[in-house]
Amino acid sequence: MPDSFTPSDRSRVKRMHERAAYDRESLHAVIDAGIMCNVGYVIDGQPYVTPTFHWREGERLYWHGSSASRMVRATKEGIPVCVTVSHLDGLVMARSGMHHSANYRAAMMFGTAHAVTDADEKMASLKAFVDRLTPGRWDEVRPPNPQEFKATTVLAMTIEEASVKVRTGGPVDDDEDYALDCWAGVVPVNTTLDTPEPDTLLREGIAAPDYLKTIRVT
Amino acid sequence: MPDSFTPSDRSRVKRMHERAAYDRESLHAVIDAGIMCNVGYVIDGQPYVTPTFHWREGERLYWHGSSASRMVRATKEGIPVCVTVSHLDGLVMARSGMHHSANYRAAMMFGTAHAVTDADEKMASLKAFVDRLTPGRWDEVRPPNPQEFKATTVLAMTIEEASVKVRTGGPVDDDEDYALDCWAGVVPVNTTLDTPEPDTLLREGIAAPDYLKTIRVT
Repeated sequence: MPDSFTPSDRSRVKRMHERAAYDRESLHAVIDAGIMCNVGYVIDGQPYVTPTFHWREGERLYWHGSSASRMVRATKEGIPVCVTVSHLDGLVMARSGMHHSANYRAAMMFGTAHAVTDADEKMASLKAFVDRLTPGRWDEVRPPNPQEFKATTVLAMTIEEASVKVRTGGPVDDDEDYALDCWAGVVPVNTTLDTPEPDTLLREGIAAPDYLKTIRVT
Repeated sequence: MPDSFTPSDRSRVKRMHERAAYDRESLHAVIDAGIMCNVGYVIDGQPYVTPTFHWREGERLYWHGSSASRMVRATKEGIPVCVTVSHLDGLVMARSGMHHSANYRAAMMFGTAHAVTDADEKMASLKAFVDRLTPGRWDEVRPPNPQEFKATTVLAMTIEEASVKVRTGGPVDDDEDYALDCWAGVVPVNTTLDTPEPDTLLREGIAAPDYLKTIRVT
């Protein structure tokens, strides 16, 4: 497998192409740093975008079918999708309106989505979903019973094409604008986790597991 | 104008419909709490999703055309779009795999996107974009010159239909699972801003403006 995707007209970044990358390492880093994706698909000519939760195994992207019954119904034969994962890292304030920008990491992926019907792949993918953020938790919780397992939908696609776009750094102004009396800089944006809040019905004596100390979402 | 949208088959929430809302107040709150949206559209049957920056004026949603030249080319006659704005608020850890969930706020909107060609509306919308997060900044920065103004694309749509989906609170487990020896609770997720970083080329004596103390992105 080549280390990079070869962009077609579909996936080639058209604007600010100096910010683009097509290598798998960059792509996987952007995917794995997020837990929410947006899945775009078409039904009867109408575009739909569904925000949901994703995870990755090698070159396969998985996402949770919740709230996507439209999509699930359409995936029986496989449905073309475009999936994005994006992170906002900073507000870039330049000395001109035009050069205001943002620091971000964004991945755009193309492929054909199917519902995962193989029971082993589906169970393994649900374990991967839970253990991804909280390693070991799958073995602590009650596993799905047959009805729950059937009611849960996992969708997957092999990433056929993808592009990554990243902006970092400070504002870039026109030469003459550096003389203006205007503040310029970056306001960093972070996604952070607060102290875990135990369920009010948590039984006494159950300590917070170690993975809650190391959990990260970006 | 009615306070709520009447959901059609396109916008009606199909799964977990008890989490759904269709009123404008809930919708506007979710839109205005975010600055990144995902715009879904179709070109030659292929779905595309473009992450970009949005703002709102009444019932019109605006977004920045950057990185969306495909979309911009397609909007001359108006193009059907589905736009989402979503916020992840917490990871909900239940005592069973099945009841793991997330707290979130998500808006899904439908409409027909056009490039904003009216010069007055376009300039006013750019001002609104900058002043939205940093009130008064538009008057401090150099305004766009004619070439810049022409090179900037603003897209807009009147929100024709929309739904909002919100989950809050702790895990909800099956009765018998509360006896399990498993930690359960919520890990809150926040989007936060760090201390603004002045541009390394910022002239001496330019103080950080007051709006940097009050800026919020969620």
